[in-house]
Amino acid sequence: MAPVIVRLDLAYDGTDFRGWATQRNPAIRTVEGEILRHLERVLRETPRLSVAGRTDAGVHARGQVMSFATTSGLAPSTIQSALNGALAPEVVVTGASFAPDGFDARFSATERRYRYAIDLAALPDPFTARYVWHRPGSLAVGPMRLAARELVGEHDFASFCRRPCGDRSTVRQVHAVTIARRADVLTIGITANAFLHQMVRSVVGTLVTVGEGRIDPGAMRAILAARDRAAAGHLAPARGLTLERVTYGRRA
Amino acid sequence: MAPVIVRLDLAYDGTDFRGWATQRNPAIRTVEGEILRHLERVLRETPRLSVAGRTDAGVHARGQVMSFATTSGLAPSTIQSALNGALAPEVVVTGASFAPDGFDARFSATERRYRYAIDLAALPDPFTARYVWHRPGSLAVGPMRLAARELVGEHDFASFCRRPCGDRSTVRQVHAVTIARRADVLTIGITANAFLHQMVRSVVGTLVTVGEGRIDPGAMRAILAARDRAAAGHLAPARGLTLERVTYGRRA
Repeated sequence: MAPVIVRLDLAYDGTDFRGWATQRNPAIRTVEGEILRHLERVLRETPRLSVAGRTDAGVHARGQVMSFATTSGLAPSTIQSALNGALAPEVVVTGASFAPDGFDARFSATERRYRYAIDLAALPDPFTARYVWHRPGSLAVGPMRLAARELVGEHDFASFCRRPCGDRSTVRQVHAVTIARRADVLTIGITANAFLHQMVRSVVGTLVTVGEGRIDPGAMRAILAARDRAAAGHLAPARGLTLERVTYGRRA
Repeated sequence: MAPVIVRLDLAYDGTDFRGWATQRNPAIRTVEGEILRHLERVLRETPRLSVAGRTDAGVHARGQVMSFATTSGLAPSTIQSALNGALAPEVVVTGASFAPDGFDARFSATERRYRYAIDLAALPDPFTARYVWHRPGSLAVGPMRLAARELVGEHDFASFCRRPCGDRSTVRQVHAVTIARRADVLTIGITANAFLHQMVRSVVGTLVTVGEGRIDPGAMRAILAARDRAAAGHLAPARGLTLERVTYGRRA
């Protein structure tokens, strides 16, 4: 039987995972590791998984996409049910389909959207604490929006990449940065063609420094130009970050 | 120093607790046990806690109220900060104040409000799964509302009490039952002067049976009259239940 490509759409609570990617030590619990363990049992073969966003430890996903080639002959819905039976509700396969030949969840993606949530209330909320950064005290949204605007477009984001930045090129195209406040929660949405390692979290950390009035929105340009991680702000915690959506083909 | 009464308002995620009440085995993790452990350290005395709602294992609280007498001389805000430093965000002290002489979180309460959330979507949502009962498939809200109306007023709720029902009287006054649907989540709110053990969860289980068309809304009256736990529906899972609010003095 010729191999076919299966696409799975995933949502997961990343709190109790050490990120997406399997690690050498099999005792380390990862999203990919858990999925692979059950996929091998269902498919009776060991697929190689491609994923749109290799989320870090503690980072969540609502619209993650993965793909793999299989000769198992199984219907995608069968694979979906088997994985959900084993992994839901911590990891939920929200969609399953055959993908066109050549489809690769990572390399075919044209846009990723991440969402970062900051809770500004004086006290944390036990019901959202796993999914937000609790950072009490207000932030000046106006300056943050000015700073965010500097990021839109094609730039070298080396200053916002975890060192050593393994990627050959550190140039990325940021399509949009939105900042919205609803009650005590500030939400930062960032869409780009692709992201460097820890790019969203270091962008958010830098925007928060702007919102605190500790650096000027105009400094964003110099931070980009420095191409040096030390120029940017601290890394925002993983728990506030969620991979929201991955786009294929034309930009949505 | 004469003892004063301190009132603490609490919110907590009950998922990883075996309920409110301390158990004989100190290895069993309870909300009261965790609070007492830190209160003893802060107050340098062992208070007796009174609580408005003795929530079961896995049940959450947004507006729980507890009280205790103390001669420690500490300001409520000091106690609040110390407890939050040790227990937040899983348990958060959202308010702390001196209460009038004679105040008792349990016996002074005139009304409790619980909220039960049911997720009707085909697939669970990893981000709400700790706080809802995932029960895929629609429910007929109209019949559920008719059945709920039968519960309002003063009734003997023995059919909705876990056996053996230790309370001397099983008569309670239900002030309101509301059922609202928003997207895939059905929320049932119940306010009463007080509740029997597992009363909300068995009421919800019975209302769901009505929503499934398996019993008639009119049967509610006979279920109440039976004064027998076997007459009511199954117990809805703990995770969907939250103690929302406790009222003192006049009804809000």
